[in-house]
Amino acid sequence: MKLCIIGGAGHFDYVLGGLAQGIAVDLCAVAPGSAGENLGKLEARLRELDLNPRRFADWQAMLDETRPDIVAVNPHFGDHARINAECLRRGIHLYAEKPLATTLDDLAELEKLWRGSGVHLAAMFGIRYKPWFLTAHQVVQAGAIGEVRLLHAQKSYRLGQREAFYTRRDSFGGTIPWVGSHAIDWLRWFSGQEFVSVFASHSTRANGGHGELESSAMCAFEMTGEVAATVNIDYLRPASAPSHDDDRIRVVGSAGVIEVRNREVHLLNAAGEQILPQLSEVQCFADFVASIRGEQPCLVSAEDSFLSTAASLLARHAADEKRLIRF
Amino acid sequence: MKLCIIGGAGHFDYVLGGLAQGIAVDLCAVAPGSAGENLGKLEARLRELDLNPRRFADWQAMLDETRPDIVAVNPHFGDHARINAECLRRGIHLYAEKPLATTLDDLAELEKLWRGSGVHLAAMFGIRYKPWFLTAHQVVQAGAIGEVRLLHAQKSYRLGQREAFYTRRDSFGGTIPWVGSHAIDWLRWFSGQEFVSVFASHSTRANGGHGELESSAMCAFEMTGEVAATVNIDYLRPASAPSHDDDRIRVVGSAGVIEVRNREVHLLNAAGEQILPQLSEVQCFADFVASIRGEQPCLVSAEDSFLSTAASLLARHAADEKRLIRF
Repeated sequence: MKLCIIGGAGHFDYVLGGLAQGIAVDLCAVAPGSAGENLGKLEARLRELDLNPRRFADWQAMLDETRPDIVAVNPHFGDHARINAECLRRGIHLYAEKPLATTLDDLAELEKLWRGSGVHLAAMFGIRYKPWFLTAHQVVQAGAIGEVRLLHAQKSYRLGQREAFYTRRDSFGGTIPWVGSHAIDWLRWFSGQEFVSVFASHSTRANGGHGELESSAMCAFEMTGEVAATVNIDYLRPASAPSHDDDRIRVVGSAGVIEVRNREVHLLNAAGEQILPQLSEVQCFADFVASIRGEQPCLVSAEDSFLSTAASLLARHAADEKRLIRF
Repeated sequence: MKLCIIGGAGHFDYVLGGLAQGIAVDLCAVAPGSAGENLGKLEARLRELDLNPRRFADWQAMLDETRPDIVAVNPHFGDHARINAECLRRGIHLYAEKPLATTLDDLAELEKLWRGSGVHLAAMFGIRYKPWFLTAHQVVQAGAIGEVRLLHAQKSYRLGQREAFYTRRDSFGGTIPWVGSHAIDWLRWFSGQEFVSVFASHSTRANGGHGELESSAMCAFEMTGEVAATVNIDYLRPASAPSHDDDRIRVVGSAGVIEVRNREVHLLNAAGEQILPQLSEVQCFADFVASIRGEQPCLVSAEDSFLSTAASLLARHAADEKRLIRF
């Protein structure tokens, strides 16, 4: 397998985690995807794995020369769509940082390129693979809370000091697509329903000098089946917090309630209250590679990747325009 | 002090809690407020307090004859407005179950009657007085989380088997006004901001045969100051749950996060994470009586009562019409 990594601004660690678990590569090459992008962390991590990647200055030249089987794309977020589109045109299996695009037009173009292409594509919705989310999802699928009726998801991050590209909408894309898309993706995944409409709101206040970066946001979705869902997103988790993130979901069903909180899974149903033992973590990039090899479908399908990205961009749009948007 | 209680379908216990703590009454009289209303629980509780109330069949006759100083109104919820209006016309201080009215027209009429009347009025937003909410609110007011930016509130109740009047919109008023208005009231109280717009959604599915009663709902508010807030409401808490309710609020500020959960107050700010010691509970009806006596302003002002009711009714309207409503 020949692997290229374009950019080092996102979750390339997902890919490296797969390599560390023994995915063999015949060739590994890297190139920046954005002007002025720093690949220092990516290269340091590759060296730790005793991988000695070829380094290209130009990602298109890299693709021309190496003709990879898989490309992982994670440059500055405003450059996702342009690079993803080129990879799809070339028919390369695409492991792409979310959001797949930062505009709806670009996303529609990607979907057009992907349909019927035979390319395997997955967005890096890596949090699905965490034991607490895998476990909660499995239990909901097994009927432990009955029919899903209401969901609330939370993403809360420490902000610290971010690179300059985070401070501009054109390069960052917005906090709802960048941070919130995980939570939005969980809503579809847990409920099995599709989005009907969204209202949202976001604000840059108290963002610690980060320009256009929104430090707080909320989204409210109507879904099919009269299911409703809300999301709270913030970059206001104090530096003193015991962890970078505080990811949560609470799902209310007709026969119980399940919550992921503090990396625990709390189930309340007719059997009482319990904290569930957890499934093992699945390595997300390994899952994608296995899907290419035909061993199993990827936990994050291309459809999921497109729909969750679209919902995130529509939510951002609803927040920008302060109006309700129907899907 | 002469006290009348009209109806026994709501939180008359708030009033009796005040009487139990020593509020002296020269006269106590009760009457049903709704056709077919059962006052059995109210009368049993009064007997426990060794109070021997006069019982009237007609609440207007009771008001004519006893000329009370204070009336507590808690009949079937669809009858709140009509009775509240009559009490205001008579100039009686009004301790009124929420929502103050179940239609916006009726609420506007009540506000017109109240303005300039000199009548003391408070809605029964009794959860504000719980130690965990009082404590969290005090700490937020003191600046422990900086400027409030984002809020999420939760009301989750066991449904069980409710009286027939819960199953019809005209007598029940809707789950957003009945259950959700508490949470909606917290949003204004904690943030110090006013509502700008609301989107909401509700569903009767999985309501255990309770007709028009909505078993799940969500609301999303834009507030002044670019503050955003979401609410999740459900009647789906399993019968096996360790408590009737699971009331929560999470408030994210520019300098920290505070949460009320499981009757605890969790604060995270620069000083680290802690569970706060709590203030003592304040008796809500005693607070209202003290405000009439001029001793202190009531924690729930008449303005709060009107604004939180209005927001609840507009949220229900947004859910009914599946549209965004601006205040």
